[in-house]
Amino acid sequence: MITISSIALFIFEKNNRMNRRKFFRNGALFTVGSTLINPFSSVAQPLEIPIYKGKKAKNIIFLVSDGMSSGTLNMADIYLDRKTGKGSNWLNLYRENKVTRALMDMASASSIVTDSAAASSSWGGGFRVKNGALNIGINGEEHLPIWQKFKKAGKMAGCVTTVPITHATPAGFCVNSKSRNSQADIAESYLDLKFDIMMGGGQQYFDANSRKDKKDMYAAFQKAGYQVAKTRSEMLATSDDKPILGVFFDDGLPYSIDRENIKDLGNSVPTLAEMTQKAINRMKNHKNGFVLQVEAGKVDWAAHANDIAGLLYDQVAFDDAIKTAMDFAEKEEETLVIITTDHGNANPGLIYGKNVNDNFDSVQKFKHTNDWILHGLTPESTLSQVKERIEFANNFVPNDDEAQTILNYYKGLVKGDDGLYNYKKLPFDYFAQVQKSRTSVGWISSDHSADYTELAMFGPGSQELKPFIKNTDLHYFMLKAAEVENKF
Amino acid sequence: MITISSIALFIFEKNNRMNRRKFFRNGALFTVGSTLINPFSSVAQPLEIPIYKGKKAKNIIFLVSDGMSSGTLNMADIYLDRKTGKGSNWLNLYRENKVTRALMDMASASSIVTDSAAASSSWGGGFRVKNGALNIGINGEEHLPIWQKFKKAGKMAGCVTTVPITHATPAGFCVNSKSRNSQADIAESYLDLKFDIMMGGGQQYFDANSRKDKKDMYAAFQKAGYQVAKTRSEMLATSDDKPILGVFFDDGLPYSIDRENIKDLGNSVPTLAEMTQKAINRMKNHKNGFVLQVEAGKVDWAAHANDIAGLLYDQVAFDDAIKTAMDFAEKEEETLVIITTDHGNANPGLIYGKNVNDNFDSVQKFKHTNDWILHGLTPESTLSQVKERIEFANNFVPNDDEAQTILNYYKGLVKGDDGLYNYKKLPFDYFAQVQKSRTSVGWISSDHSADYTELAMFGPGSQELKPFIKNTDLHYFMLKAAEVENKF
Repeated sequence: MITISSIALFIFEKNNRMNRRKFFRNGALFTVGSTLINPFSSVAQPLEIPIYKGKKAKNIIFLVSDGMSSGTLNMADIYLDRKTGKGSNWLNLYRENKVTRALMDMASASSIVTDSAAASSSWGGGFRVKNGALNIGINGEEHLPIWQKFKKAGKMAGCVTTVPITHATPAGFCVNSKSRNSQADIAESYLDLKFDIMMGGGQQYFDANSRKDKKDMYAAFQKAGYQVAKTRSEMLATSDDKPILGVFFDDGLPYSIDRENIKDLGNSVPTLAEMTQKAINRMKNHKNGFVLQVEAGKVDWAAHANDIAGLLYDQVAFDDAIKTAMDFAEKEEETLVIITTDHGNANPGLIYGKNVNDNFDSVQKFKHTNDWILHGLTPESTLSQVKERIEFANNFVPNDDEAQTILNYYKGLVKGDDGLYNYKKLPFDYFAQVQKSRTSVGWISSDHSADYTELAMFGPGSQELKPFIKNTDLHYFMLKAAEVENKF
Repeated sequence: MITISSIALFIFEKNNRMNRRKFFRNGALFTVGSTLINPFSSVAQPLEIPIYKGKKAKNIIFLVSDGMSSGTLNMADIYLDRKTGKGSNWLNLYRENKVTRALMDMASASSIVTDSAAASSSWGGGFRVKNGALNIGINGEEHLPIWQKFKKAGKMAGCVTTVPITHATPAGFCVNSKSRNSQADIAESYLDLKFDIMMGGGQQYFDANSRKDKKDMYAAFQKAGYQVAKTRSEMLATSDDKPILGVFFDDGLPYSIDRENIKDLGNSVPTLAEMTQKAINRMKNHKNGFVLQVEAGKVDWAAHANDIAGLLYDQVAFDDAIKTAMDFAEKEEETLVIITTDHGNANPGLIYGKNVNDNFDSVQKFKHTNDWILHGLTPESTLSQVKERIEFANNFVPNDDEAQTILNYYKGLVKGDDGLYNYKKLPFDYFAQVQKSRTSVGWISSDHSADYTELAMFGPGSQELKPFIKNTDLHYFMLKAAEVENKF
């Protein structure tokens, strides 16, 4: 089309080649761009271009809402949209076209449906293991956890969560263990491995009084140079130049909505976003960068209990932590932000019907979780106490039959649920059925589901994400994005 | 970095500018590509570039699995992967990085949870209407349906479906009607509007004997130059140079798994893929191109009935139709393929447990739907007949309690379900509970859910898809991709 002199052509072509190479180094144009220019050719396998050679991910923030079915993500967005007109931070990243997305196959070595230990191990160790195991393979082999790899590569590494910091999801990035249940041992491993900030619940695994071996893990961490915080105020008072252990509750932290509505809990327990901010502050000035896992662990517990207020408000608290991470990453152009979940749980959804809008909006007036409601009843409670407690927490009054049926569980007349984390066998399933006619929210079960999970990425490396990946792919993806060679 | 002579620089820059412009005309690089080069800037609003100016979508094939929750898509993929090692055609498009994807907000004018009429109208008319309406707005205004717009623009247009061809989803692209239930009138509108191929179920709306007005719609279509096919063989024998009406069953077509296992049904009723192939053959040589809607309508009906065999095998039949469309579109570089669903339904999922793999694999041995099982029982059936029928269809024997409970519904001792499409009030809900312990599949309800829906695109225009859209956006998207000005 264009006539140019041969000398100019030579120079043009030479420069064009160099520009092409520069483009290719940026990664984007070859793998995704060429699909767009010619949408008819598959480009799943780039042939000549070394990938992940754009900007390096100096930092990685890995945010995981544990056990978040797609219905949970959607309902939180609809809830926020109807309440604030703004939707969720997570889906606003989609609306603003800021991230790449994929579906992720989370199956474990033993099952189509993973548990959190095998899920975190798939990302953390790069191999599928059996449900219950932490980076120990089916023949007993140990896979080096990714936060240890990044520590060896010179980065700082940490985890914050709303469940015990020794729980499956943080542990899967940090340690090897035959069983996710060895939480007291996992607390010791954390100390040996010198992670830079570890915060969440789980006092029982650190306190000398509750540990079987009577070791005082708090003292041990302090001796090793850690600042130990047991309340929100203590956490906020820590300095950013020393490692931090934060343990704010005996087991999991209180649900967000209960924390908001129970006096003093807001002072003693930090939010997930506050822990995330503290962790970023602690590690952001490290010259080799940092890696941070942020887990909304009680989204999973709420799904196990079919507890709509627990689920929604904790998902919103996770959404706040996304904002904290994104505020940092959008300023700081060297941070890969990964937002995902490890498996579905209970597949909740809003059900068609004349009153679905009003029913769902009624959840905006809830003051407490089902966890709070059901733990506050006893075999001695009266029918009117049952009704009053539910009305106080949920703004509706159950009818006599419903209230009596609930009481019957406490009186031992009906067998209680066997749900995970439901040690007292409280009637979570039945109460979710009672709420269903008021909230229009339904559940398939009180356990994990096999659904492929939602995955979103922002920042350097994100351009390389393909629309469908296996859980284990993410292990190698993080290493490549950070340009850390996988030789340990 | 590079030193070049000033004259060469001038030429280089000039060419570079032209190349940039060419890239921009292709659309891709500006909106998506630049995110990838600089992942830190939002590019939701292209400023200077007229969009959709790449290759024009001469043809559009719009494939919709009606009422497909994300769990349905995932389970069909897992089912196929475990059975054939290959996964589904839909998700293989993701694995092969061939398509762009989005979440779509399907809310209607009256509810967070849409019905199929409002959903199809949002795409078909470009406006949200109340549940139940077809392209009639909240103040009675009529929105011109998109298949009529494309007809006016000179293209051929048609629909194929597994439910009555007069049902909500095809009707929402074709007609205006205050009520989706006016199916006899809708059959007449199709004739007036001269669509080029319309095929599915719904004999009752065409046959003089079953229409209230006793009009013989078959004769009317024939008089207007249509070929009328009432069986698969008649459909296969039609020529491709005249319009076609194909009506193969009284109401919805039989479920795929029943069709496969009932003698002669395979000869009298075509598959969705066969109807899709016939529609493409009929319209592909038209000089101005064509638009085709392909609906797996009984995926929705199966979800309403919590009927796992109905659901999975009809989703697989939809997946076969995707292959038919893609085989055409990958050869023919002028076809935009849109693959989606109009809303979730029942949010099914595979539930965690020791036997989930084996339980789910047991569905591979199913011979019939719950629809087939429950329609074959009567108040006179014996306990052993109930057991035998279930064992024959599902390869497991229900226990005495389960069989007796099922019988009690028929004997009128227990109130039957009120599910949509369940005119006989058969115990679909209870039977799904019976199956749940054998299949590990759970359901939240027997109705639609509010979940944002999965949307994938291939071909010209697909590069413009953003990660989150509203249902109505898709109306204007199709017009733009086809470069049809929205002036009618």
